This record gives sequence, C-alpha cells and structure tokens, in this order.
Amino acid sequence: MLIVQKYGGTSVGDVGRIRIVAGRIKATRDQGNRVVVVVSARAGVTNELIARAKELCPNPSERELDQLLAIGEQETTALTAMALQAIGVEAVSYTGGQAGIFTDMVHTKAKIRTINAKPIERDLNDGKVVIVAGFQGISEAGQTTTLGRGGSDLTGIALAAALRADKCEIYTDVDGVYTADPRVVKSAQKLGEISYDELLELAASGSKVMQSRSVEFAKKFGVIFEVRSSFNQNPGTLVKEEVAYMEQVVVRGVAADKDQAKALISNIADRPGSAAKVFRALADAHVNVDMIVQNVGLKGLANLTFTVPQADSAKAVAALRPVLDELGGEVAVREDIAKLSVVGVGMKTHSGVAATLFQTLADAGINIEMISTSEIKISVAIDRKRADEAVRVVHSAFKLDRA
Amino acid sequence: MLIVQKYGGTSVGDVGRIRIVAGRIKATRDQGNRVVVVVSARAGVTNELIARAKELCPNPSERELDQLLAIGEQETTALTAMALQAIGVEAVSYTGGQAGIFTDMVHTKAKIRTINAKPIERDLNDGKVVIVAGFQGISEAGQTTTLGRGGSDLTGIALAAALRADKCEIYTDVDGVYTADPRVVKSAQKLGEISYDELLELAASGSKVMQSRSVEFAKKFGVIFEVRSSFNQNPGTLVKEEVAYMEQVVVRGVAADKDQAKALISNIADRPGSAAKVFRALADAHVNVDMIVQNVGLKGLANLTFTVPQADSAKAVAALRPVLDELGGEVAVREDIAKLSVVGVGMKTHSGVAATLFQTLADAGINIEMISTSEIKISVAIDRKRADEAVRVVHSAFKLDRA
Repeated sequence: MLIVQKYGGTSVGDVGRIRIVAGRIKATRDQGNRVVVVVSARAGVTNELIARAKELCPNPSERELDQLLAIGEQETTALTAMALQAIGVEAVSYTGGQAGIFTDMVHTKAKIRTINAKPIERDLNDGKVVIVAGFQGISEAGQTTTLGRGGSDLTGIALAAALRADKCEIYTDVDGVYTADPRVVKSAQKLGEISYDELLELAASGSKVMQSRSVEFAKKFGVIFEVRSSFNQNPGTLVKEEVAYMEQVVVRGVAADKDQAKALISNIADRPGSAAKVFRALADAHVNVDMIVQNVGLKGLANLTFTVPQADSAKAVAALRPVLDELGGEVAVREDIAKLSVVGVGMKTHSGVAATLFQTLADAGINIEMISTSEIKISVAIDRKRADEAVRVVHSAFKLDRA
Repeated sequence: MLIVQKYGGTSVGDVGRIRIVAGRIKATRDQGNRVVVVVSARAGVTNELIARAKELCPNPSERELDQLLAIGEQETTALTAMALQAIGVEAVSYTGGQAGIFTDMVHTKAKIRTINAKPIERDLNDGKVVIVAGFQGISEAGQTTTLGRGGSDLTGIALAAALRADKCEIYTDVDGVYTADPRVVKSAQKLGEISYDELLELAASGSKVMQSRSVEFAKKFGVIFEVRSSFNQNPGTLVKEEVAYMEQVVVRGVAADKDQAKALISNIADRPGSAAKVFRALADAHVNVDMIVQNVGLKGLANLTFTVPQADSAKAVAALRPVLDELGGEVAVREDIAKLSVVGVGMKTHSGVAATLFQTLADAGINIEMISTSEIKISVAIDRKRADEAVRVVHSAFKLDRA
C-alpha cells in the first residue's frame, strides 16, 4: 500500500517526539508499505518566527513572511529524515518546492494548483521514505509560498490525491472526531466514521479537529483519510463520503463556537438591495459573517441579525456606519454569544431534530437568540456562559453518549 | 556604484544587530548605490542545528544536513529584508537557489559552478535591495547544497564577480587585517591594504580573518574587497592584487597557528617513492599535512618531519602504520607545537628576513623545531607555550608596531 501520513506540530514538537514519529513511520514501512510523510513545523516555531519578524517590521511583505515561515517545516522534515536514517530507514526530505507542489502567487494563503509527483515517485521506487514539508509550495515564478491555516493537512490530503495513495492518515494530538469536545462532555464518544459533510459542518461549528479547507479538498478528490493521534495506538476516525450507519443515526455530533458576537440591525428600510448593501460592506471589510436571520417588521422596516467572530465586531460596526447612514436603522451588538450546532446527515430524512433541540434547551432554561439551519445542521445562538452546559444536555438528549 | 556587502553571523546575531545592519545598508543605498547583501546565519544557529541533528542521528546523510543547515541563512535573509522594509527600503530575500547560485553535487562542501545573475539584476533594476543567503546553493538536480567553511564569504565574493560589482565589503567582527592578532600583540597595526597572496599566506598561517578559499576565488576573478567591521565605522583593509608600498615593506604580518602537532618519521628507507607513499597514505586518510622537512641521514636512511592539525595526529599515526611496516622506520609525535609565520611579498626581493627571524627567536631562547619557507612566507615550528611571546618579539623585531 502507498500511505501518506501527516504529523502536526505537537507530534514533532521536539527531538524526542520526532524520534517517536520516526518509529511509527518505520513500523508502517516494515509492514511492506511505501510511505510519504508530511510534517508541520515544531509547535510554537511559526509563532516565534512571526514574533521576531514583527519586532523588526510591523508590516512585512507577505513574500518575506513566506520566505521566513517556510523554514519551520524545512527543519522538521530534515530532522525526521535523519531520525529515520538513524534507525536504518532510507529517507529523504523535500521542501514544498522540491516536492513539486505548485501554487498560485498569493503569499501567506496560496492555493495549490498542481502537484508534479514524479520526484516523489522516483524516490519511493528507490525504496526511500519521502518526508515533505507541509504548509508550503512554490509559485510558477519560483517564489516560496505558504498555504495559510491548516496548510499542512492540506499538503497531506493533496499529496494523497496526487499520488493516488491507498490511505491517508492525519496525526494530531487528539484521538479522532468525537460526538462533542471531550473536555466539555465527559461521556463524548469517538466516532469510528464520519462523512465529509458532517465534518465540514462540525469544523464550521467550532470543532478544532480540522480546517474546512482540507476536508473540502478531500471531498472534492475523494481522499479517504483517518484522523488519529500520534501519542497512542488507538484507531482514529475515518472520514469519507458515505458512512455505513448513516440512516440510523440522526445526530453525529454537537459543537459550540464560543467566539461569536451577535449584531442586530433594526428598522432598516425593507427594500430590494438593502441586505445586499449591508453584507457587501461587511465583506469589503473582510468581516466573516456566519448566521443570518431577517425578519420583516411593520411599516416597511426590517430587522437583520447576524453573528460574526467576536474579534471582528468593532470592525463590523465601523463598516456598517455609512450603510446605515444611507438606509436608516441602528445597530446593536451583543458580544457574549456562543453558537451551538448539532450535525448529522441523518437529519435529511428524520424530522423532529429541531424540536428535540429546542425543547432540551428550553427545559434547561437556556434562551435561544437566533436559529439557522442547513440540510445537515441546526445552529442556535445562545448565552456564551451557558454554552458548555448546553452542549452537555444536548449531547445527552440525542443519546450520543451511547455509541 | 553596485556594491556587494557580506555580513557575518555576529553582525546579524540578533534582532537588534539586524536592525543596525539594515541601517548600514540603507545608508549605502541612500548614497545612490545599488546594493546586494549576503548574510550568514545568526551566530550559533548552525551549531544548534547540528547539535539537534546529531542528537537524532550520529551520522546523518550530508544531503539532509544541507537541507537543515540552509534554513539558518534563510531566516536572516528574510529578517534583514523585513528590517529594511520597516525603514522604507524595498528589499527582497533570496535563497541560494533563488539567487541562481549553481553548485556541484558535493553536499556540505559544494563548489560554485555558475551564477545566473539575471533574477538579482532584475530586482536591482526595479530599485530593490537584494538579500542573498550565504553559504548555500543549488545543484543542477535541484538539491540544496552548502559550501562548507567560509561559504558565506565565498558567496559574497562570487556574487561580486558575477555581477561585476564596483565594490565588495566583507563585514565581520574585526576591523580588518592586522600585522598580528591584536589580542596577542597590543601594538598590532591595522593594514590599509594587503595583497591576495599575503592574505592567503596569513590565512594558511592561523589568521582567522578569512578562509583561503574565498581569497583564492577573489584573486582568480580579480575581485577587490574590503574586510571591515559592522560594529563601527572604521575603514577596513583593502585586499587586491598589487598594493602600493609593496617594495618598501618587507614583512606585512606575523601569525601563529597553535593547533599543530609534529610527526617525526625516523630511519625510513631513503629511496624514490618513500615520501610519496607516506603522503599518499595521509591524503587517503584526509589528514591535512602542512610543513614538511626531509633530511637524508646515514646508511641510506632518511628522516621525514611534518606537521598536521593536532586533532588529526592520531589519525595520521594510524594511517602511517601499514606504510612503516613496509618501509621500516618509526613515528614519534609531539602534540604541543605552534607554527609561527612571517608573511610579506617584499621578501621576494629582500634578503635577511630569515636571519632576523631566527636571531630574534634565539635571543628570546625559543627553540626552532622545523623551518619551511615559501616565496613570501617563512614558517617555524616552536613550542606552543611560547607562541604568544614569540609573536610579540617577532612583531617588534620587524618594526610592525610603527605603521
């Protein structure tokens, strides 16, 4: 089998951890597999480099940031290759550019365009383990680029696609995908399998396991991958298009994003284009809007409510000022909001999920500020202080603690 | 003017030092010059990386060492470019590969083959300062290579040659080239100029200012360069083919290499090929032999004396064992040897230098163990404990303290 393994920053956090990772790689290889490994920078290194950069220049060019940040992964790839050599495994390290990962020119958040897998295949055919620097690529013009947040996962999944790998393993510091955050819900259960769509909704709902971007890429190219821990030998969670018991299980997980603020625009003129103007202004200010609810009120005036990341709330208000001057209306922000979401593809064919969710929160005396739904998710905005409690009662209401 | 500046590891040792270097670069540019800068890794970083590597693998592949070590210079180039951006100077950083520095495939001690200066010239024409990572290049096959000891100086001088720079400045932590090590001889004088050949002999004689290799390259391509300090504004030492007062000054400098051992092979068969066998065996063992003296003794037996770096003395003895088994003779090693050298192109046309040197040492009661001479240098092997004292009396005897 050809297996792609990706190890995150805590998995290669120091020399001792790198040695353990090398042992895992060797074991995989000793089972007769060909192995390509993607590694992140040591945990903390990227932030250290950024701190040093900011000390010298508050606003360095993104090209130079990429030149600088790329060295974090270069270090761990070379060290991982050496750790393998020390235990008798032939290994060779690649920068993103050497691995033929070609991207566009958008520094610090480049998109992968093509991968020339020939050099890696050649080394695999020579019996070597190939270690590739995650998070980075090269533009057609030969510039070093980085892929932005979650970039190393993306490198792993993109390489698995390009190499038509039989298996892709994403090693991180958690065991897999859980029905809820195990730090909040003691009885949370690890899922054996989850669909791309469910994991995407969970990622968008505050679950920190993986960035949406990598999951979307995997879905697009049909890369089946397993999320698992490099700190133990437990099986992880398999992520793929269709999961076996999709029909029976209605809700797969509960997640909370505690970093939200709610903005209420009241008494805005209810005419075509009003909402468009509001959200265009927010988009131009690079404010990421999440839930949106609109009610038409009396006298041709509407209320528009939406949530944004809390850090963006001031920026949002500033961006709305000129629009509200034009359309009328006022804006009020509530900062201490959490978004709770229940996710599951089974919802498509099962009714009653919303009712159960609302009743459960009502029984616990937790007020619902906003509701928004997708085909496989229901989200509610609630008081942030009660978010953990809400996750626990909802998790229990959907019987997720009995896997 | 087009000026190439090279800053060593102490000159870019931390964020504060990098900021000072950026200020110097800006000043050079503000005088209307086009500037290309070569930087080393921060002092200590290369050793840290090697230590981490050795912890993982006692004998890593040299390819992986190069992949790892190259990041040291990549960091300082990006940070230096950012420091320039912070003070309003457009700057762009290059890895060795991006700078078109093509080398052979000999990892950890690659030789520069060609430089494609086009990318640098394009950025210079766009008004940018170009910062190039020293010590590294790329092979035709796209592998990262490093140039070995003194590699960053070599990058600076090679770029000056390729770009036909008007000036090349090698910034280090000393003010220039002195008549003797100023830490040993208080009255040592900085030389305004020195010829390539003299600096080469000084480099081979224990002066740590520059590696021979870079000076040889500069001589070959006629690159005039200045050795100066980045810690002050003092003028440095200009290094070139012919120096103005060559004829008048006989001795330009005194240097001591305190890291030598002397090996005496006695009673070896004095027939053609004996010496060749001895030195072939040493070369095959990668032992660097320095001074060599041979005396023919009685009965067709010869004595052969030579010096080696002290660290190599055990290796030398081991390499000689089979040769001596064949040719007869015994080897005795004396570890605590220093080599003192006086250097100056004026020696070619002045006699009496050797006599003055020997008399001075005799007056000080310092015994001469070996003598070897070149056209512009006389070296003697002496007791290491008396090396500093010897440098001082010889420096004074040749009136080097009155520049």
